Amino acid sequence: MTTSLSPNWLTAREALALIEAGDLTPVALMDACLDRWRARDAEVRAWTHLDPEAALARAEDATPGPLHGLPVGVKDILYTEEMPTSFNSPHFQDHWPNIDAAAVAMLRKAGAVMMGKLDTVEFAVNGRRAATMNPHDLTRTPGGSSSGSAAAVADGQVPVSLGTQTGGSVIRPASYCGVYAIKPTWNLVSHEGFKVCAASFDTLGWYARSAEDLDLLAEVFGIEDVPAPASLQGATIAICRSPVWDKAEPATVAAMAEAEARLRAAGAEIRVLDLPPAFDGLTEAHRIIMQAEMRVSFLAEYRELGEALYPEMVSILKNEKGDSRADLLAALDLAAACRAEFDRLAAPFDAVLTPSTAGEAPVGPENTGAATFNRIWTLLHMPCVNVPGLTGPQGLPVGLTLTGPRYSDRRLIALAGQLGSLLSQAPMRPQ
Amino acid sequence: MTTSLSPNWLTAREALALIEAGDLTPVALMDACLDRWRARDAEVRAWTHLDPEAALARAEDATPGPLHGLPVGVKDILYTEEMPTSFNSPHFQDHWPNIDAAAVAMLRKAGAVMMGKLDTVEFAVNGRRAATMNPHDLTRTPGGSSSGSAAAVADGQVPVSLGTQTGGSVIRPASYCGVYAIKPTWNLVSHEGFKVCAASFDTLGWYARSAEDLDLLAEVFGIEDVPAPASLQGATIAICRSPVWDKAEPATVAAMAEAEARLRAAGAEIRVLDLPPAFDGLTEAHRIIMQAEMRVSFLAEYRELGEALYPEMVSILKNEKGDSRADLLAALDLAAACRAEFDRLAAPFDAVLTPSTAGEAPVGPENTGAATFNRIWTLLHMPCVNVPGLTGPQGLPVGLTLTGPRYSDRRLIALAGQLGSLLSQAPMRPQ
Repeated sequence: MTTSLSPNWLTAREALALIEAGDLTPVALMDACLDRWRARDAEVRAWTHLDPEAALARAEDATPGPLHGLPVGVKDILYTEEMPTSFNSPHFQDHWPNIDAAAVAMLRKAGAVMMGKLDTVEFAVNGRRAATMNPHDLTRTPGGSSSGSAAAVADGQVPVSLGTQTGGSVIRPASYCGVYAIKPTWNLVSHEGFKVCAASFDTLGWYARSAEDLDLLAEVFGIEDVPAPASLQGATIAICRSPVWDKAEPATVAAMAEAEARLRAAGAEIRVLDLPPAFDGLTEAHRIIMQAEMRVSFLAEYRELGEALYPEMVSILKNEKGDSRADLLAALDLAAACRAEFDRLAAPFDAVLTPSTAGEAPVGPENTGAATFNRIWTLLHMPCVNVPGLTGPQGLPVGLTLTGPRYSDRRLIALAGQLGSLLSQAPMRPQ
Repeated sequence: MTTSLSPNWLTAREALALIEAGDLTPVALMDACLDRWRARDAEVRAWTHLDPEAALARAEDATPGPLHGLPVGVKDILYTEEMPTSFNSPHFQDHWPNIDAAAVAMLRKAGAVMMGKLDTVEFAVNGRRAATMNPHDLTRTPGGSSSGSAAAVADGQVPVSLGTQTGGSVIRPASYCGVYAIKPTWNLVSHEGFKVCAASFDTLGWYARSAEDLDLLAEVFGIEDVPAPASLQGATIAICRSPVWDKAEPATVAAMAEAEARLRAAGAEIRVLDLPPAFDGLTEAHRIIMQAEMRVSFLAEYRELGEALYPEMVSILKNEKGDSRADLLAALDLAAACRAEFDRLAAPFDAVLTPSTAGEAPVGPENTGAATFNRIWTLLHMPCVNVPGLTGPQGLPVGLTLTGPRYSDRRLIALAGQLGSLLSQAPMRPQ
């Protein structure tokens, strides 16, 4: 079924099966990915560092394992012993920590091959934008901050990639680029070895062109399986328009309605989950905690670089909003209470469907979209999986999120695959 | 007042004042510390890495700043660009990450000079013990896991040092070695750049021979000042025997009574703080969360090293206790609820007095004591300052902890200094 496709378009599972059968080599797979990169890089610009000779040499040396020979792209805030890590910051262009992020080490141990480093918004926060453009429309943003991670997978330059999310930095680019991605439950995968932004929100996530590929990496990262319904028929799905529904554009309103209709047609039981009023405070709580934690995690850089850091960062470091310790404690305690409450509210459902973004990708690169629909889930530590398949009035992807209680990650991945198949029979491929 | 002392026994503030006045040089101060190290290292064994020539060269190059020329010892799980980081693990003896922990970078930027790396229990958890012995009694443990950090400061080998706490790894060694130390509010100082054990507990702390020196580093780390009573007269101190009071040995029972009597004599208002029954579950909640988070943070090492890791670690990684996700969520939510509750309960008091350890340091090195009296405060994210000054029946130090609501760190440091002066007129110096 896949032989007519160039190998760079294979899913990870398809490619690994061919490698195991002896019908594809890690070097040939990397070569196909590099060919796609060469053809498209001038326009998509997903990578901050890619040395094709070194990538091929690493593919040649790939070790056996469940990911034997699988090319992986790595967001350029994760440390990689064999490549530099720039944070896409002008202040860290020669930065080369000689250690691997824990996630990179686990992937390599499983046989994966690091292909290169993927562009990001500066420090995965704000400031300098990634040079990356949306592969489906080169005038538009791929989203931020994991801009290159989503774009490279969507464009067929690499089958899977790593990103990180503190607000909406994994799910938003997945929605805009039309790929699967997971932001797992907080601290379910080690945070070690990447630039910290907000310690209690930062979450490693990953991208793929199938839900099964998300699950493949979940297995390598040691995430326990959670039983999922074998089919959407009879599954109970809650529709949660979230406290920020008024920010949804027509594209997202239509996508939510379309998904609901297809779920009903497939025999799913649809419920409505309205969040209690306390949840209305979570967007502001996210801002207060994130900025307070940034004052901790960027203090060393501030001491070194001062006003040379970008102005919005400096403003946060100076606490120009004037948030107090009491504001921070109230935000922390509200978040903690709502975590337990959301687990309770979501327990009766197999999954909760909610928007991934306000709509289609805006014109970029300066505008990378907003994390409006992602922040509260990041704050609550809940797992989120982006489901691609629908498009908006511009013909661009509009993703939807499946979320659920903490630690329901692999159930959500399985249901995302089923929902994705309902929404679209074939992945959307640029050019 | 200090001229009769060798400079290695000066407090940081005393030494810095002499350096600023031109009466002491950073090199002379480092030389005095190295002399003490040479005289005592065969017995105290506090350091995993100390290159005297390199330390002197760094002192020679010390940059101006609030800590100009101050020698600092660094626990050997924190990354230091100029020195290796072994985690005191047989598997990481040649490990040399080429980046600085954020805390190390901030201290160096302020003018401090890294003297060397201090011994720790393996990975700051368990397994291989530090070689370090208690400088007050060389048959006894200095406590773990920041064994070298406490012992080197107590022994006059360095004026201040960095440690980390996940259970009781800062406060316990401070109690056993008779020095001041702070485990601040969680995530008040960046966690970046050290081996993660349990992400939601790991806390950078520091040691000194005076409370004023703790405050000096608090300022460099950007911790906001919190007003403290100018004197203990009229201050309101709550006595909290904690849910594990039945584990207190006679030395600690006597120390708590002695401190209470001296506080009363000094005019402090003494209250009793009995914690509600929900707090009885916090010790077990700490174990469940810590072990669940260790399964995340040590998975990469487990994949690489397997059963070569020490047996207790392997048992935790295999979850041989069989803790469930439901157990973990219940523990997380109990901890979160008790954080808010303790802030409320402690709000009426200037500080809360509670034991630091069950008693004096046990015979070591295999037995490093227990974190019994520290775990619940680490779990709750509350700041803790160890106050030295009292001794037990063996003539060894017995510390007490001042704790309070989140973010009351510098108030507690100030009160710890006042209480320490009540308990002892002069620091206890080995040999």
